[in-house]
Amino acid sequence: MNLTYHPLDLKLRYKFQIAREIRDVQNNIIVHIKDEDGIIGLGEAAPTSFFGEDVSSVTSVFNQSVNLLKNTDPFQIEDITSLLKSRFPKDASARAAIDMAIHDIVGKKLKVPLYKLLGLNPKEPKVTSFTIVIDTTENMCKKTAEARDLPILKIKVGFKNDIEMLKELRKITKATFRIDANTGWTLDEAIKKINIMEGLGVELVEQPFPVGNIETLKKLKKSVKIPIFADEDVRDSTDIPRLSG
Amino acid sequence: MNLTYHPLDLKLRYKFQIAREIRDVQNNIIVHIKDEDGIIGLGEAAPTSFFGEDVSSVTSVFNQSVNLLKNTDPFQIEDITSLLKSRFPKDASARAAIDMAIHDIVGKKLKVPLYKLLGLNPKEPKVTSFTIVIDTTENMCKKTAEARDLPILKIKVGFKNDIEMLKELRKITKATFRIDANTGWTLDEAIKKINIMEGLGVELVEQPFPVGNIETLKKLKKSVKIPIFADEDVRDSTDIPRLSG
Repeated sequence: MNLTYHPLDLKLRYKFQIAREIRDVQNNIIVHIKDEDGIIGLGEAAPTSFFGEDVSSVTSVFNQSVNLLKNTDPFQIEDITSLLKSRFPKDASARAAIDMAIHDIVGKKLKVPLYKLLGLNPKEPKVTSFTIVIDTTENMCKKTAEARDLPILKIKVGFKNDIEMLKELRKITKATFRIDANTGWTLDEAIKKINIMEGLGVELVEQPFPVGNIETLKKLKKSVKIPIFADEDVRDSTDIPRLSG
Repeated sequence: MNLTYHPLDLKLRYKFQIAREIRDVQNNIIVHIKDEDGIIGLGEAAPTSFFGEDVSSVTSVFNQSVNLLKNTDPFQIEDITSLLKSRFPKDASARAAIDMAIHDIVGKKLKVPLYKLLGLNPKEPKVTSFTIVIDTTENMCKKTAEARDLPILKIKVGFKNDIEMLKELRKITKATFRIDANTGWTLDEAIKKINIMEGLGVELVEQPFPVGNIETLKKLKKSVKIPIFADEDVRDSTDIPRLSG
């Protein structure tokens, strides 16, 4: 198979601001993989600097994969993904893009859409959340009003008046709220704020503390009722056991 | 889709004896599922009494599944397997048989063998182990001699002279040994025996203690070098977290 790629710089409609970063463009990379019958599969890498990836690391993986993929069969997905994982263990978004493109080829070769190949029901798509990033309360209200009919909003918090902001958003929509602090809180702040959130229709709270504060997470869990989700603390399945309990 | 089934009683060449049971027949059930194009998929249930299943529980699940499957599409595997899991959470072998049969239909509809649909490499089949069950040392030696060229033997232990028996088997073959006590040991026995096994080419030791003795497993792990595997202690993924550490 033959691999080529090109950058896809997505200019964001609104600045993306969370507790630790701000940006106005998402630098993705599109990969094209062509098999020996000329069938082309497409995949997209969306690298995140927090996980050590960027455009340059992704294109480096793609350049090295050109030779690795040269004489492979798209149907041998397990072999290909295992090889890539052993060569590029930390480059999850680059590997995901190649994985996607090969699945796309297989679906096209078998003449079935990918959802069908994966046994999924197109009438019941998975519901995801729409993100409201950090901004002035006025702007967060404006964006929430635009999105008021969506079923789930993910609200980014981790700044001074985040609870006051949340109370304002609750007046605008009945959507389920998922709260994401992106490592922005201390234990005292988290306990105080999450206890207030119980009355505000909050389904879950994501990554309150900086990575690695597992004991603090366990203390928080005992002090609040809303489920606490790990995000930055889990890069792959080996990170899960230490979070149990 | 239309579901029918028939029993398949497999008479064993040798009696199957492990630490807690003995039998000379394996009572399986074959399921046939036919889709609206007349394509038939086959699946096989191998129920185990230890996990609460037998021929009667499996056929009961199959009888109840006739109506559930009537108007379903074989390509909607996620919906079908989720529905079966919610209705029959404890009937894993019956659900596995239906799952297999539906995958078989999908492969036949797309005109590709199942290994290809699942992205696997037929030239590198997974290596499994051949089981040597509990018997007299003489008979265990005889069966091991018949199987001496296989790469991995799983030796069932959990009886009085199991270590002496193991030393005899080691003289016959260079195969990797996997040891399975099927809940048959005490902590003192396990520590003593596993320490001797370190010199006997043993790769792993499975389920030394009765189900639920997690603290005892942790003590054993600290006292021996060979990896300890859970088997009867893990029925599904929710059993895993308490085993960590």
